[in-house]
Amino acid sequence: MSLIFASRWENGYNAAMPRRQQHGRCVLIGLLWIAAGGTGSAAGTLDLLPHPARVVETGGRFLLDETFTVAAVGEPGDRARRAAVRFLDRFCGRTGLFVRRDGNPSDEGDPRASFIYKCERLGSLVPGEDESYRITVSPDRVLLVAPTDLGLLRGFETVLQLVEGGPEGYVLPCVQVEDEPRFTWRGLLLDSGRHFLPVEVVRRNLDGMAAVKMNVLHWHLTEDQGFRVESKLFPGLHQLGSDGLYYTQAEIRDLVAYAADRGIRVMPEFDLPGHATSWFAAYPELAGAPGPYRVSRTFGVQLTVFNPANPNVYAFLDAFLGEMTGLFPDAYVHLGGDESNGMHWDRNPEIQEFKREKGLASNEELQAYFTARLLEILKRHGRRMAGWEEILQPGLSGEVVIQSWRGTGALIAAARKGYTGLLSHGYYLDLCQPASDHYLNDPLPEGHGLTPEEAGRILGGEAAMWSGLVSPETIDSRIWPRTAAIAERLWSRRGVRDVDDMYRRLETVSCALEEHGLTHLKNRDMMLRRLAGAMDIGPLCVLAEAVEPLEGYRRQSLGRVKTTLDPLTRFVDAVPPESGLVRRFAASVGAFLSGNDPAASAFLRRTLELWRDNHESAKPHFLDAPALREVEPLSRGLAEAAEIGLQAMETMIAGRKAGPSRGSGLRAALEDLKKPFIGELELAAVPAIERLAAAAEKSAGKPARRTS
Amino acid sequence: MSLIFASRWENGYNAAMPRRQQHGRCVLIGLLWIAAGGTGSAAGTLDLLPHPARVVETGGRFLLDETFTVAAVGEPGDRARRAAVRFLDRFCGRTGLFVRRDGNPSDEGDPRASFIYKCERLGSLVPGEDESYRITVSPDRVLLVAPTDLGLLRGFETVLQLVEGGPEGYVLPCVQVEDEPRFTWRGLLLDSGRHFLPVEVVRRNLDGMAAVKMNVLHWHLTEDQGFRVESKLFPGLHQLGSDGLYYTQAEIRDLVAYAADRGIRVMPEFDLPGHATSWFAAYPELAGAPGPYRVSRTFGVQLTVFNPANPNVYAFLDAFLGEMTGLFPDAYVHLGGDESNGMHWDRNPEIQEFKREKGLASNEELQAYFTARLLEILKRHGRRMAGWEEILQPGLSGEVVIQSWRGTGALIAAARKGYTGLLSHGYYLDLCQPASDHYLNDPLPEGHGLTPEEAGRILGGEAAMWSGLVSPETIDSRIWPRTAAIAERLWSRRGVRDVDDMYRRLETVSCALEEHGLTHLKNRDMMLRRLAGAMDIGPLCVLAEAVEPLEGYRRQSLGRVKTTLDPLTRFVDAVPPESGLVRRFAASVGAFLSGNDPAASAFLRRTLELWRDNHESAKPHFLDAPALREVEPLSRGLAEAAEIGLQAMETMIAGRKAGPSRGSGLRAALEDLKKPFIGELELAAVPAIERLAAAAEKSAGKPARRTS
Repeated sequence: MSLIFASRWENGYNAAMPRRQQHGRCVLIGLLWIAAGGTGSAAGTLDLLPHPARVVETGGRFLLDETFTVAAVGEPGDRARRAAVRFLDRFCGRTGLFVRRDGNPSDEGDPRASFIYKCERLGSLVPGEDESYRITVSPDRVLLVAPTDLGLLRGFETVLQLVEGGPEGYVLPCVQVEDEPRFTWRGLLLDSGRHFLPVEVVRRNLDGMAAVKMNVLHWHLTEDQGFRVESKLFPGLHQLGSDGLYYTQAEIRDLVAYAADRGIRVMPEFDLPGHATSWFAAYPELAGAPGPYRVSRTFGVQLTVFNPANPNVYAFLDAFLGEMTGLFPDAYVHLGGDESNGMHWDRNPEIQEFKREKGLASNEELQAYFTARLLEILKRHGRRMAGWEEILQPGLSGEVVIQSWRGTGALIAAARKGYTGLLSHGYYLDLCQPASDHYLNDPLPEGHGLTPEEAGRILGGEAAMWSGLVSPETIDSRIWPRTAAIAERLWSRRGVRDVDDMYRRLETVSCALEEHGLTHLKNRDMMLRRLAGAMDIGPLCVLAEAVEPLEGYRRQSLGRVKTTLDPLTRFVDAVPPESGLVRRFAASVGAFLSGNDPAASAFLRRTLELWRDNHESAKPHFLDAPALREVEPLSRGLAEAAEIGLQAMETMIAGRKAGPSRGSGLRAALEDLKKPFIGELELAAVPAIERLAAAAEKSAGKPARRTS
Repeated sequence: MSLIFASRWENGYNAAMPRRQQHGRCVLIGLLWIAAGGTGSAAGTLDLLPHPARVVETGGRFLLDETFTVAAVGEPGDRARRAAVRFLDRFCGRTGLFVRRDGNPSDEGDPRASFIYKCERLGSLVPGEDESYRITVSPDRVLLVAPTDLGLLRGFETVLQLVEGGPEGYVLPCVQVEDEPRFTWRGLLLDSGRHFLPVEVVRRNLDGMAAVKMNVLHWHLTEDQGFRVESKLFPGLHQLGSDGLYYTQAEIRDLVAYAADRGIRVMPEFDLPGHATSWFAAYPELAGAPGPYRVSRTFGVQLTVFNPANPNVYAFLDAFLGEMTGLFPDAYVHLGGDESNGMHWDRNPEIQEFKREKGLASNEELQAYFTARLLEILKRHGRRMAGWEEILQPGLSGEVVIQSWRGTGALIAAARKGYTGLLSHGYYLDLCQPASDHYLNDPLPEGHGLTPEEAGRILGGEAAMWSGLVSPETIDSRIWPRTAAIAERLWSRRGVRDVDDMYRRLETVSCALEEHGLTHLKNRDMMLRRLAGAMDIGPLCVLAEAVEPLEGYRRQSLGRVKTTLDPLTRFVDAVPPESGLVRRFAASVGAFLSGNDPAASAFLRRTLELWRDNHESAKPHFLDAPALREVEPLSRGLAEAAEIGLQAMETMIAGRKAGPSRGSGLRAALEDLKKPFIGELELAAVPAIERLAAAAEKSAGKPARRTS
């Protein structure tokens, strides 16, 4: 943001303020200049996520009470005004304060208002738009200024994150925040194709995105398993391609407006030429092989593909994309391009002939031809094109955005060749990796080797929520809170990468995200109650916190879910991708092993005893609820692993000789517990218990340590 | 239902079955005849709710596995087919069984299917329609037959409730169920006026209603605080009357279709002539006093009222109701009529003159005139009228349905006078009464004194969810599971009134209701996490299970929420109306006092110790979260009450003399704890602890009892 702008406005505003307040504020601004030149690590214990570019605590606090008022100065517009209303709703919801709401927020620039916001102009929803903002909390006033109303939206979120409880009630600590994003493209891909996501699922996730300052919904709307947009031109697409599960055009318009109101662009994806079976249910003549086709029920790469030799395909897509650009105002349309399987092209003599005619030596060249034709069509409709990294073929026009998914290499290569790019490799939420993995995955890592100009072509990245293994009930728990870590990676400076601090803030943000109706926390117990058929699920919760779904593609390959109609209501679906308890357990193992930490020792013992004894309490559930029996061995395994952990601790604390065979036995037993992938889950605490066992083995024979 | 019909069809069906199966089924049918003549109390431990008219367990079980298939015989139609799809979704969701779903359910009458359903005709959504059904589970087949597809819908719910876990996996116990409702009108009123309820809230509650066989959504769409339907004829109504929170006509149509698909009628209510402030924001000329008007922010009976002397009012309502009957196909339109305040009529000379002209001696007569005019209009639009009991004035046409809300008396009186009627008095969900109160509230109680013909005019009843004190986050917890108890009252026989058995089944149903996305259980912890601003809320959960919101109208009168914009996110909002733990606690006090019950004694002591010690654990929350401080005295009070309870138990168990002053002291201290209504909550366990204290006082000096 322009500091000149901000201080110019603030000076103008100061003219209307009492002298005493002016004085106080000038001092604060002076402090800011110092902080802004610093490292940006002054956040202390503030729970801001994403971490702002520059923040400094200036001392003191602004007291929040029922007289709190919000006012716009100037004409920040309807979008900011509605954001101010939502800000107050959430503020009152969290604090329970009976703030007067009639006429609050006000548009009338009331100079006595507690919280004043102002911007210079309305922002445009295009990459590169200014989203910066600046917050000044002083003891008597909160100011939020930004060049654009989009900056105000980001700033409102920061102010809400600053609210904290204290002995006097709720307060805002006095701070100066100056903030702007590192990357301009901070997206979340929602895949409505493999499993349909009802409107309210999309809506609440848009709210979640806005809460962590993300600004692009990449909406994957067509897949082998479903065509999810109503087309009035080609109604067969949604009528035969969706099992009745599609968005009406009115719903699309509503959601696009809802997103825009939160400063979020909506880029639709129509995946071509592969991943397109659902198109052919009604229009088999577009395909590279004769039909008939029906919506696919199974997952995995399919053979079906568009026929690039058929001129009607281009006429069809031209008309269809023309219709869609009427629905989606965003400058970009994503046309997929990934995992197109050449087999149907190879088998089709017409296509072979076409390749010869056009001098296309390979299927890659044929796809490049197809891409070029589509790009031409999009251009005619006034749109730019984005696509998966496979579209990067020799001769590709430089105007497209390349989205990498198989590695960071494609992104770096594309930037070198002059293409703009997005990172999604390393941000695949369906792989159930820990938040820290995503967090440390940088689109422009230290030592990337690009020139500044090349580096500038990396626009940002997108978390990708492929929906083969999620339902509307479980999707939020796969997206949140981990996506907030990705949001910070894309918003905050490269140097902000303290994993422990991220996790600390992530927990707070995770709770706050629930106010949008997100179900990432609350659906776990709901699903366990359904499986148990009972209200009392204590032992199941203990088990759920000790396990994690298989990471990577192992669940896809080893698991039972192979079709869109298979149940996604099992234990593995109820359990979130990452256990906070196991993370704390592993940290405590570290603390215990590295020295005399009685708190860590006590926590470990308590947790291990809980796990050891839990199987006995869980047993009645396995009797009553056959759906839970698949995790019974896991529950038993947890007890066994915990027993080993306790023995290891005993060995170390007592310093008594376990004997080498005893130590190896412990570790060998743990090896077994790591193997079976029962119920598509793994015992997440085993690696940490292994470290205990290994240390016990080493320590055998050493003198007793004084840990309690 | 017609038994003749059922057995006729079954015989026809039998002709297509292998002989062995026929034989087995004939035996079962023989058993049924016996059971049908019995008392219907043979349900044993089945978790059926509402309790069917007749059910008998015939021994053995039908094993549910991944080969389970469902097939229609004949032409049960699309509604039943879609219900079968949902049935299988929920079945697989609960059991985690990977049932083959492609082509399952089938429409093709596959005689080898595990579960076969059939009906004679499509039901009409009108009061009095046949909703009966009959289920036969034998070891090799499940049959569901019904005269109408509506009966099939009810039967699918019963089959799902029959699913149970056992050592062999999931099974259906072999049963014969013959079932039909006692009352034809089993409704839930949703008030979208005072607080707007988004589409998904209505949708998931429709699913909840269908799960307990309710069949009328009474949709209160206009109120002082909001006009919630889009009107294309008078767009000012929703544009100026709703703060932007209204249902589009497309949304209304979708919801009406969604309800019809679940066998639920949607009766809209447009409340007239009072409760109508929101109409006048755009059309003040319709009101009995000059404007300007704006949507009301406060609750309570308002003065604003339609002007019955203005002929334009009737023209306006004629056109408006004409538009609405195009949206709502139901035979009935509810026109309110409650709590019309005469003050604006008294003050308006034009209205006074009108009364004189028409010879209307009182405002009651004026309202009767207004009602008669509206009835005429509705008739022209082919609709029947329903209204609140106030419309029952001399001269009222006999065709209207009278809905009682102030007492059962109006209902009985109306039936005597020839009017049909509905009971809502005693079913007001906003009053936070225990489920048992609603459950025992019978529209036709024993000894009602009506002739059979008069009694036949009582069509049923409606649970009423007035929304002044609920938000989309909290409304489900006010509706469920208590509404399921009302659903049973309206469906099952009068003699089914075992409160303990109802509560046992209610717990199972409550979990099952969650599969529709209902948030009645899961939002409590979400709200507590938000208040605490933290993940770990153990002590807050303990407190939440020991308190209940103020019952009756005390929260309205003593509480802080007075406007539509006040927060509904406090502790009192998070807590459900009824604590299951307190109910069990009270029951255990009974068991403890009535004899030697070591289990009760142990449970009481454990619970009291938990409560006594909880305040210390909760204290950090009160420090960190100012929003929780309002319940700190309640937390302390719980500790004090628990200490008193423990002392009382000690006194009784030891039989040692507490001395009269000691005993009275305990009870006096409890008196104090009953008074303050802290945070609009009360300590729900205090009455049970009082019984302990009173018994301790009596027992003082008696010899020791052997409990513990």
